[in-house]
Amino acid sequence: MYKGIAASDGIGIGKVVIIKEKSLSYTSYTPKSIEQELIRFEQAVTDFTDKTMAMAERIKNQIGQKESEILEGQILMISDPMVCSEIEKSIKSDKCSEEAVSTVCDTFIQMFLGIEDEMMKQRASDIGDIKTRLLEILLGVEVADISAVAPGTILIAKDLTPSMTAGIIKENVVGIITEVGGKTSHSAILARALEIPAVLSVANITSLCKDGEELVVDGFDGCVIDNLTDSIKLQYSEKQHAYIEYKKALSTYVGKKTVTADGLEVELFGNIGKPEDAVTVTACDGEGVGLFRTEFLFMDKSTMPSEKEQFEAYKKAVIALKGGTVIIRTLDVGGDKEIPYLDLGKEDNPFLGYRAIRVCLQREDVFKPQLRALLRASAFGDIRIMVPMVTCVDEIRSVKKLVKEYMLELDGESISYNKDIKIGVMIETPAAVSIADILAKEVDFFSIGTNDLTQYTMAVDRGNAKVAYLYSAYNPAVLRSIKHVIECGKKASIPVGMCGESAADKALIPLLISFGLDEFSVSPSSILATRKVISEVSKEAADKLAQEVMKLETAKEIAELLNK
Amino acid sequence: MYKGIAASDGIGIGKVVIIKEKSLSYTSYTPKSIEQELIRFEQAVTDFTDKTMAMAERIKNQIGQKESEILEGQILMISDPMVCSEIEKSIKSDKCSEEAVSTVCDTFIQMFLGIEDEMMKQRASDIGDIKTRLLEILLGVEVADISAVAPGTILIAKDLTPSMTAGIIKENVVGIITEVGGKTSHSAILARALEIPAVLSVANITSLCKDGEELVVDGFDGCVIDNLTDSIKLQYSEKQHAYIEYKKALSTYVGKKTVTADGLEVELFGNIGKPEDAVTVTACDGEGVGLFRTEFLFMDKSTMPSEKEQFEAYKKAVIALKGGTVIIRTLDVGGDKEIPYLDLGKEDNPFLGYRAIRVCLQREDVFKPQLRALLRASAFGDIRIMVPMVTCVDEIRSVKKLVKEYMLELDGESISYNKDIKIGVMIETPAAVSIADILAKEVDFFSIGTNDLTQYTMAVDRGNAKVAYLYSAYNPAVLRSIKHVIECGKKASIPVGMCGESAADKALIPLLISFGLDEFSVSPSSILATRKVISEVSKEAADKLAQEVMKLETAKEIAELLNK
Repeated sequence: MYKGIAASDGIGIGKVVIIKEKSLSYTSYTPKSIEQELIRFEQAVTDFTDKTMAMAERIKNQIGQKESEILEGQILMISDPMVCSEIEKSIKSDKCSEEAVSTVCDTFIQMFLGIEDEMMKQRASDIGDIKTRLLEILLGVEVADISAVAPGTILIAKDLTPSMTAGIIKENVVGIITEVGGKTSHSAILARALEIPAVLSVANITSLCKDGEELVVDGFDGCVIDNLTDSIKLQYSEKQHAYIEYKKALSTYVGKKTVTADGLEVELFGNIGKPEDAVTVTACDGEGVGLFRTEFLFMDKSTMPSEKEQFEAYKKAVIALKGGTVIIRTLDVGGDKEIPYLDLGKEDNPFLGYRAIRVCLQREDVFKPQLRALLRASAFGDIRIMVPMVTCVDEIRSVKKLVKEYMLELDGESISYNKDIKIGVMIETPAAVSIADILAKEVDFFSIGTNDLTQYTMAVDRGNAKVAYLYSAYNPAVLRSIKHVIECGKKASIPVGMCGESAADKALIPLLISFGLDEFSVSPSSILATRKVISEVSKEAADKLAQEVMKLETAKEIAELLNK
Repeated sequence: MYKGIAASDGIGIGKVVIIKEKSLSYTSYTPKSIEQELIRFEQAVTDFTDKTMAMAERIKNQIGQKESEILEGQILMISDPMVCSEIEKSIKSDKCSEEAVSTVCDTFIQMFLGIEDEMMKQRASDIGDIKTRLLEILLGVEVADISAVAPGTILIAKDLTPSMTAGIIKENVVGIITEVGGKTSHSAILARALEIPAVLSVANITSLCKDGEELVVDGFDGCVIDNLTDSIKLQYSEKQHAYIEYKKALSTYVGKKTVTADGLEVELFGNIGKPEDAVTVTACDGEGVGLFRTEFLFMDKSTMPSEKEQFEAYKKAVIALKGGTVIIRTLDVGGDKEIPYLDLGKEDNPFLGYRAIRVCLQREDVFKPQLRALLRASAFGDIRIMVPMVTCVDEIRSVKKLVKEYMLELDGESISYNKDIKIGVMIETPAAVSIADILAKEVDFFSIGTNDLTQYTMAVDRGNAKVAYLYSAYNPAVLRSIKHVIECGKKASIPVGMCGESAADKALIPLLISFGLDEFSVSPSSILATRKVISEVSKEAADKLAQEVMKLETAKEIAELLNK
């Protein structure tokens, strides 16, 4: 058995096809004519672009727009004047195209790898992919044709580059194993989109297995099983079958209401980052959007999105929901989210710094266009405004004052909006928990952000591996906070939702039902699974469980009981 | 009126003497004999050392050991082989002593100023002082004789160097004003030690005032008042008189118990960083030590203090307290406190990272010597162990297990210790507040650390100026947390103390009395003032106030009511 990283759910049983890397070795030479060598390189880039565009098109049809963007990104990269002109410069100094491509790409890879950032590692992997394919083109080496593998194939490769993945025919590939890559790598994203079980980062797997060998890929536990006996095979077949049944069962929840076994109805929403994702929420049968993270409209841009751009984005989302609620969080910049053009400066402890509402209340240039855009979009559906990182009631009072002011402005401009637009706060700081009763009097709803709430309650940076053992919503302190907030919401008769990762935690859902949570907002892909869990819980049993859980004193004991 | 930084309490009314800077200009020349020039420089250094030692002696007698160390530090600096040999090297390259001293000192000043650190700025100011005085000696320029000023003098200078300050005769100087320096500069420290009102960093004050002009120095508000009318003078005389009376009144509290006006007795302890400070606590009439910050034993060193060194330090402190309690906090490294040789690594959000008990529980090499040293010292007095940054009950259980283990070890080595040593937790995270009832069952005492508690509750880095407006213990969330912790302590019959800055906050003390705080631990210089405030509060009135305060919804309203 080999251990790796579980990157895509499911069990795959099949025969190995190892994608061998083609030899891309070459002997350097001095080009006879620099002019001609430049033309040769340009031709290779054109070839590369054509092939990549074709692959992107195929992926777009087979998987989706988002996935094909990875390959489109590679076309942009090779067209980048910096990369291209560096290679040309190298050729002009009498290097052959192969050497120029290799050297320049390697330099960029080293540069990207030097930056401690997941995004940069992806860039490095992209440049590596570009290098390989450019060399293949320059050397006239044949590309591995993944689309030709037989049904029941388990693909094994050192790394599954986006261009390789593009060739995968979903029906023929039952599992994917690689030597590198993590949960957020391209291979992982594509495997999940194709619903193929995948285990990544299995050391030396390309040399440990043989073509034709039978293996099990366990995408749940992140392991690869070899030397299959009949009993092992049977065991995994059952697991595979159960998962297929489970997925089928999920589909029976489409179109149903979200009610507990004893008839308590709750709301089940989806979390999104872009207006297009609102369509995904509807497709996954979500009843609304519980968290629209507007920072994605601001990131990866060089200037701030205008009021009009934002208005269009919010309008698009609420129209996609066809009458459903869309809760839009005002800009949550700062912390781990940087937006260079806002120029917020470096901080020693950004999570305890100038972020979210703290920035917005001081930056009219940022907040005003967003609030006006939200108001204008509210004319087209049930848009609600949610304010993040609130720690004192003054903040929410200031927001309400601004909203009123901009309403008057819009009146003056004869622009319509929802005069009764609902305004809520995200409860994600210990201070907000503590004064939830005070806040409840000021707002129309609460939404508990368990990720940040756990972080601040436990004083643990959720990105810091050294203290990750303390980062758990199962800690009594976090659970008590959640319970308290819901109680305060009930007392003030305002609904309480949850948009952190805990809302989709199967083990935690019964507890949240018992506490009285009104709305669960989860990632679109978790909507049906969450509805299934809720449907199987009865309020009565949940109350009993909650009573036991809240007596326990450690996260470990609580996890054990909840997972029983 | 001119604004500056309030650096030493009190009101001074008097006539200006401006300390003019002597011209230290010189014409560079090539020494006739390098040998003789080196002797000339050495002679100047000897002169410098003699004069500085005399000054240090005078300061030691007039003010204290600690203050004279600043001047002794300058002697060490000029004897530093790096500084000295650089100057000699310069002389050997045909420069005159004046030029050599100037150039080398200026280089060091620039170097120190380049480092963003208050300590380094002090070093720069020291080297500046050394340069001035060496040039005075080399040029034979007369030194300003501050000791000759008439009674009732307000000294004004660009900067008050330690050597100048050494000449001050306390009886004659009623106020100090400078153009540079902050609350922690040498001038500020010395002014406070001499109890002379001081306002620093008043722009251009040396050119704005004239010798003999009458001024008021307001060391409370950090301002300088000119153009004195009779009514202004009267107003400040009254303020001055009131302060003198207040200081006199404080002295009547020496040797008294700390009781409220209606007879409720509480404990009044001091916070210390070094064993020597324990003497200061006794001198200031503190009844015990409520917080011994052991990290100072670990800092400014290149290796970890041994068990023996730590044992000696803890023993020294508890012996100095003569039977009083000494609460010693186990190592609180990380956050904003770095100890390079522990090699803890850089973090994105150190305040939410690997710090304090989180480090200790994983580093036996650090924790074991400290716990053993604490146990061994407990044989010599009432030492208590306090664990910082606790967020779950597992942590304190682990500490107790280790203590038991080391007790058995000590038994085996026939080393005595207090078998009933008390172990407590610092309540400074929202998680600890939330589970205070669970923690109370495990420990012998609580101590509320309001600085960190405010920081984590409000999710505000206390060092970050951009969010400083949110950092206040007056926030309802923080006050509710404090109240809750004290209630949990009472319910479990364990004492609750406070060792954050709030314990000495005059406005907050009545509230803490009402909540039922058992022990106040403040900086030694605040002990008598705190006792005075407590003595003037009645529990009954405090309860009424608390009832009103806890109804309020914002920090601003609470501050207004408390300060009424």
